[in-house]
Amino acid sequence: MTQSEANQATVERMFAAEPVLVDVARAGDVVPGMAETTILTSGPRTEPDAYEGGQRRAIAAGAVFEGLAGDEADAWRKIEAGELRVEPCQDHGCIGSVAGIYTASMPVFAVKDRVHGNLAFCNLYEGASRRRLNYGVYDEEVADGLRFLEEVIGPVLADAVRVAGEIPLKPIVRRALNMGDELHSRNTAASLLFGRAIFPALLEVATRRPDQVGQVLAFLAENDYFFLRLSMAAAKATADAGHGVEGASVLTGMCLSGRQFAIRVGGLDEWVRGPLPTSEAKLFEGFDEDDIEWMGGESCMTETIGLGGFAQATAPSLQAYQGGTPDAMRETNLRLYEITVAENPDFKIPYLGYRGTPTGIDLFEVLERGILPTIDAGLAGKEGGQIGAGTLLPPIECFEAAASLYEDRYGKPSVVGSAAGSADG
Amino acid sequence: MTQSEANQATVERMFAAEPVLVDVARAGDVVPGMAETTILTSGPRTEPDAYEGGQRRAIAAGAVFEGLAGDEADAWRKIEAGELRVEPCQDHGCIGSVAGIYTASMPVFAVKDRVHGNLAFCNLYEGASRRRLNYGVYDEEVADGLRFLEEVIGPVLADAVRVAGEIPLKPIVRRALNMGDELHSRNTAASLLFGRAIFPALLEVATRRPDQVGQVLAFLAENDYFFLRLSMAAAKATADAGHGVEGASVLTGMCLSGRQFAIRVGGLDEWVRGPLPTSEAKLFEGFDEDDIEWMGGESCMTETIGLGGFAQATAPSLQAYQGGTPDAMRETNLRLYEITVAENPDFKIPYLGYRGTPTGIDLFEVLERGILPTIDAGLAGKEGGQIGAGTLLPPIECFEAAASLYEDRYGKPSVVGSAAGSADG
Repeated sequence: MTQSEANQATVERMFAAEPVLVDVARAGDVVPGMAETTILTSGPRTEPDAYEGGQRRAIAAGAVFEGLAGDEADAWRKIEAGELRVEPCQDHGCIGSVAGIYTASMPVFAVKDRVHGNLAFCNLYEGASRRRLNYGVYDEEVADGLRFLEEVIGPVLADAVRVAGEIPLKPIVRRALNMGDELHSRNTAASLLFGRAIFPALLEVATRRPDQVGQVLAFLAENDYFFLRLSMAAAKATADAGHGVEGASVLTGMCLSGRQFAIRVGGLDEWVRGPLPTSEAKLFEGFDEDDIEWMGGESCMTETIGLGGFAQATAPSLQAYQGGTPDAMRETNLRLYEITVAENPDFKIPYLGYRGTPTGIDLFEVLERGILPTIDAGLAGKEGGQIGAGTLLPPIECFEAAASLYEDRYGKPSVVGSAAGSADG
Repeated sequence: MTQSEANQATVERMFAAEPVLVDVARAGDVVPGMAETTILTSGPRTEPDAYEGGQRRAIAAGAVFEGLAGDEADAWRKIEAGELRVEPCQDHGCIGSVAGIYTASMPVFAVKDRVHGNLAFCNLYEGASRRRLNYGVYDEEVADGLRFLEEVIGPVLADAVRVAGEIPLKPIVRRALNMGDELHSRNTAASLLFGRAIFPALLEVATRRPDQVGQVLAFLAENDYFFLRLSMAAAKATADAGHGVEGASVLTGMCLSGRQFAIRVGGLDEWVRGPLPTSEAKLFEGFDEDDIEWMGGESCMTETIGLGGFAQATAPSLQAYQGGTPDAMRETNLRLYEITVAENPDFKIPYLGYRGTPTGIDLFEVLERGILPTIDAGLAGKEGGQIGAGTLLPPIECFEAAASLYEDRYGKPSVVGSAAGSADG
């Protein structure tokens, strides 16, 4: 198989994926290799003592929340003693939002790619407060929120999914793109569509636990980002389906820890690391660029499959959240066709005449054209909490290192220029 | 008050309006002046025997559905004998979709402008079939659909509104504009938002009538145009609030019957008539322009208050339904600032950097600039049923006649050029 054929095979597997929500369950019960003493966090595999700042605090907070440690110092003592294990989310089929902390008692969405059989997991959105564990904050209010997910949202949704059978996510994503979502930094329509898909099942669950269903409805109504975790799990299930084609130079993953960005390439085994991304931010009142802190994040898996920054032109209202103008978003979106190998047959952009989103980032096209993938993202602050949003660009070093590994294994690719199209389409 | 001040006062009244859904009830019980033998239909007041074609058939079908006549001939005999009365919707606070047939037993939304106290009514969306009474079709299936509205949808929503108290519609409209709706030919997001707003109340209603609530949920999930009737009632409540300012040359209504287009001007009393509109249509497979039949329609009240064609740039996915390109829609939308006197403070267009929609059509600007209001609309066929969608332009004659009436009453307006802005904004 040529490089180009391998890349096409990769995106075709992604396009064929059919992610469906099959369960909502306790992480410790369903996540592969997750013990009661495991704490998952975002980013490529890292020595525990190398975690810093907000991500380090968040890991310890996970241990405290789970009852595994009395305080931050105790948590790190136990981690260093090997009594608690800190592991990368993606090595356990999970995908982390910002710091991406998972502990055993947290509820997770289980999303299965019905076509290829692979499973991906994502834990639940904590709610609209800027202060959340995934943004490196932990206090009684955060703990109460996590317990509410564990005791009310998780169990009710679990019952509802059992009643509903399963909930296909691709049709929701497809429709939400027609309604101004790009499924990373905007999930308003998808959250509504998911709510509508699950309402009939909730009605049945309500006959047994009416008050809790009322609480779930209120939570859904308040949280326009609720669907993000389903979008992330669906993106991971989709990208995982594409991963592992011999000779492919297309990306099948991007993620970051608090210290490193990393990319996964379809035809390579390892996550290839580089320095932190750069950002263009729109910060909440009272914050400036110096307040930004990197705590990790894996939601850029959505960009990997042609959503988020790769569907920015669908979501002009993002200008209010992450800055930029509608025209600039459109230009950004058009530029990404130059570094991708296909146009998505399911994810379409109404503002571009229903052109499919640019999908399948070829690392060699990125290097050749000097165009980096655009990632939509929320931004954390040094004191913890969300302080704004913006767009990120991964470091070119990841792509250089990946090209070198690729060439060591497969030789130099013969032709660069397999991208789907120019900016003019 | 100068003409310009009168126009500003008119749009300020419209902007201040707060339409809320206060009730769902039987038309015969709540619509002012509606007897059991009344049939309402779209368009300005017309001698009964002047109704033609699909609108004439639909009026008779209303009588048959209501049990007032045995068949079409019987219905028209009774109408001519004065036993049944055919009346214009808007003379009874109602607003008609296409043929706009109301009979006494039909359920209607009652929408109240909380600020000015005026009420507007609209009956319910019949469902996704192309064959509907409002498109001039009547058979057993259509009758079953109408009875389903009467026996299930109406009563369940009535109970739900009683539980919910009242449902403010402006916040739904405002949010839906961020989600690709223009609230005339696209209501997908608004329908979802309405469903979410009413679901907690439906949960309570379900304790008494679970099966019917399940049917309502299924109906809501299937019908992306469900909200259109609420958008229309809200538009009428809003435009009515603006009507009646002495000296205003801004439109407070547009409507058509099967034979005439008509406009209402804020400072004039009567509906001013002209010939039928012109259309640019995208028709369903198997139909051509010759198949289009005018049966009436008053949903262009949405354009009157700055929605529909005046918010086209929010709704790029309309290209699939009514044709056109996103760029052309944007240009159309920008052009309409030239004939309007204000930018809407609530209805914003994300794709135009959140510029407010052009609102308040000044009849003199229309004449001066030769730019006609663009109306998004569904189109009916000669055999009945919906055969496509497109954009309509009202006849210039309405504006010429209105200018002449205006000048007879108020004299020639001193300055033309009060429009909100040029295409460049």
